[in-house]
Amino acid sequence: MKSITKYAESFNAYLTRKCNNQAPSSLFDPIDYILNLGGKRIRPALVLMTTDLFDGHVDHAYSAAMAIEVFHNFSLVHDDIMDDAPLRRQHPTVHEKWDINTAILSGDSMLIWAYQCLEDYDQHSFYTLVQLFSKTAQEVCSGQQMDMDFENLEEVSIEKYLEMIRLKTAVLVACAFKMGSIIAGTSLENQDHIYSFGINLGIAFQIQDDLLDVYGNPKTFGKQVGGDIIENKKTFLYLKALELSSEDDRNQLKHLFSINPKNTQAKIETVKQIYDQYEIKSISSERIERYKQKALLSLNQLNLPDDKKQKLKNFAQELMHREA
Amino acid sequence: MKSITKYAESFNAYLTRKCNNQAPSSLFDPIDYILNLGGKRIRPALVLMTTDLFDGHVDHAYSAAMAIEVFHNFSLVHDDIMDDAPLRRQHPTVHEKWDINTAILSGDSMLIWAYQCLEDYDQHSFYTLVQLFSKTAQEVCSGQQMDMDFENLEEVSIEKYLEMIRLKTAVLVACAFKMGSIIAGTSLENQDHIYSFGINLGIAFQIQDDLLDVYGNPKTFGKQVGGDIIENKKTFLYLKALELSSEDDRNQLKHLFSINPKNTQAKIETVKQIYDQYEIKSISSERIERYKQKALLSLNQLNLPDDKKQKLKNFAQELMHREA
Repeated sequence: MKSITKYAESFNAYLTRKCNNQAPSSLFDPIDYILNLGGKRIRPALVLMTTDLFDGHVDHAYSAAMAIEVFHNFSLVHDDIMDDAPLRRQHPTVHEKWDINTAILSGDSMLIWAYQCLEDYDQHSFYTLVQLFSKTAQEVCSGQQMDMDFENLEEVSIEKYLEMIRLKTAVLVACAFKMGSIIAGTSLENQDHIYSFGINLGIAFQIQDDLLDVYGNPKTFGKQVGGDIIENKKTFLYLKALELSSEDDRNQLKHLFSINPKNTQAKIETVKQIYDQYEIKSISSERIERYKQKALLSLNQLNLPDDKKQKLKNFAQELMHREA
Repeated sequence: MKSITKYAESFNAYLTRKCNNQAPSSLFDPIDYILNLGGKRIRPALVLMTTDLFDGHVDHAYSAAMAIEVFHNFSLVHDDIMDDAPLRRQHPTVHEKWDINTAILSGDSMLIWAYQCLEDYDQHSFYTLVQLFSKTAQEVCSGQQMDMDFENLEEVSIEKYLEMIRLKTAVLVACAFKMGSIIAGTSLENQDHIYSFGINLGIAFQIQDDLLDVYGNPKTFGKQVGGDIIENKKTFLYLKALELSSEDDRNQLKHLFSINPKNTQAKIETVKQIYDQYEIKSISSERIERYKQKALLSLNQLNLPDDKKQKLKNFAQELMHREA
């Protein structure tokens, strides 16, 4: 089995061949642009890797990998409008480079295109894959809506937060794993276990992302350290601190997450002091560990030779191993 | 066979039963709102009517009818954002009543929901219906993009204009007819003929809409007479007049379609005088007649008893018979 990077590279080669479309250029240029901004291609690579893992034909997995990647990029285009984001991967977002209308319509066209990628499968697989895909897509929309709703709420329970990241992030990762397992034609039990593995790994990854935002190494963390604090984002760390802190600290935290001071460094430091006081770092690490363990439990239940289970474990380690 | 209104009524009853969803209310309320703003339900009624016509089980057609209606309303929600429209059927549009983000995301969720409606069919029909649906949806997006592109072009050929209305309007009507014929399990030839019937009827209907905007009876035309002229919309009439007129008249027309005067009545009258001078009314009527004849040609090729063909003709007459 090739490493995940190798799968991502094969996918990129496939993507380059596929990117020619008959739509009006004003509709297709933005699609071509966003799909070629790069990105790690983790989700499509997971489809290929999982197909391979369950002894399926990797050649048959590219169309599903493409569906997942096109859908992911559709969600980026529309989310970037909603978040009013100027940049995506260091380049102007679609609605900045063109305009909001173009970004809406190109996104719509990508969502439809994602479905069309699945037409390459036989009728039985098509039915199964489209059903999973629609359910996942609907969940991702719900997750995005919850995320937007949270911005206007003073308090959000940890439970609701975890549900939001499950929907917004984890289900698409899990869908990628499951699609690979469906294409390989493995048992329904294996499909469920690999899906569950993906969900828990996805949640662990997202909480770790929240953690690294505050405690990450600026040299190895891809984004600006403290970015979530500057943007007043309600993360796992923030919500946990609200839950545990004294009334005074709660009020100070809430105040800090309602202002946009020029001196962002001072704000980050103050928030960090409160987090430290309530041991938010180790609490978050424990929670990440708990989800990793749940993921490994599902992995162990897979009916799969040990060496292949080990490859999946290696992937999980690789994904989670970022300096904290 | 019941009249089209009866089918629309049955569909409304079905819609009321179906409108309860598990999504976050902030996502689902706007969906519920737009679906219950009314509308004539012509497209879903066509699915039911066509299934009945080809001796299919009408009960089996509701899910496809729902897919078509949900898709149509998705396109209204997103188009209204793009057109900055404040009202839809005399009520605030979704982005006005809520906000643009909500309208984008609710629309996305509706597009996915439309696909999910088709999950009620067996795997073979599902494959056929989803493939047709995706192709149609992609074409509707292209049509909307062409329409937006036209706003920034000084001149648009009649040919391009007809292609735009085919994509933006006619293909969804044709898709409704074809879905009904697929559900009824009629021959591929019949499916093609009814599709072609729908395309040509749809184009005829749209040109007639352009015509009635200028020459319609204010009492019976649903919209404001002269509305397209006030909004500087490039219609069949305008483009045909540009094609035929002298250089002076062309320039005057182009000027009139670049201004937004307070006295809209004077503008409408001047435009009408130019149209009259070049017999745009009768030229448009002839073109409508040509598309109607093409539609009837397809209808006559259907392998269907004469009394059923007559019902389809009656429907076409009913649809096209608005006072001019």
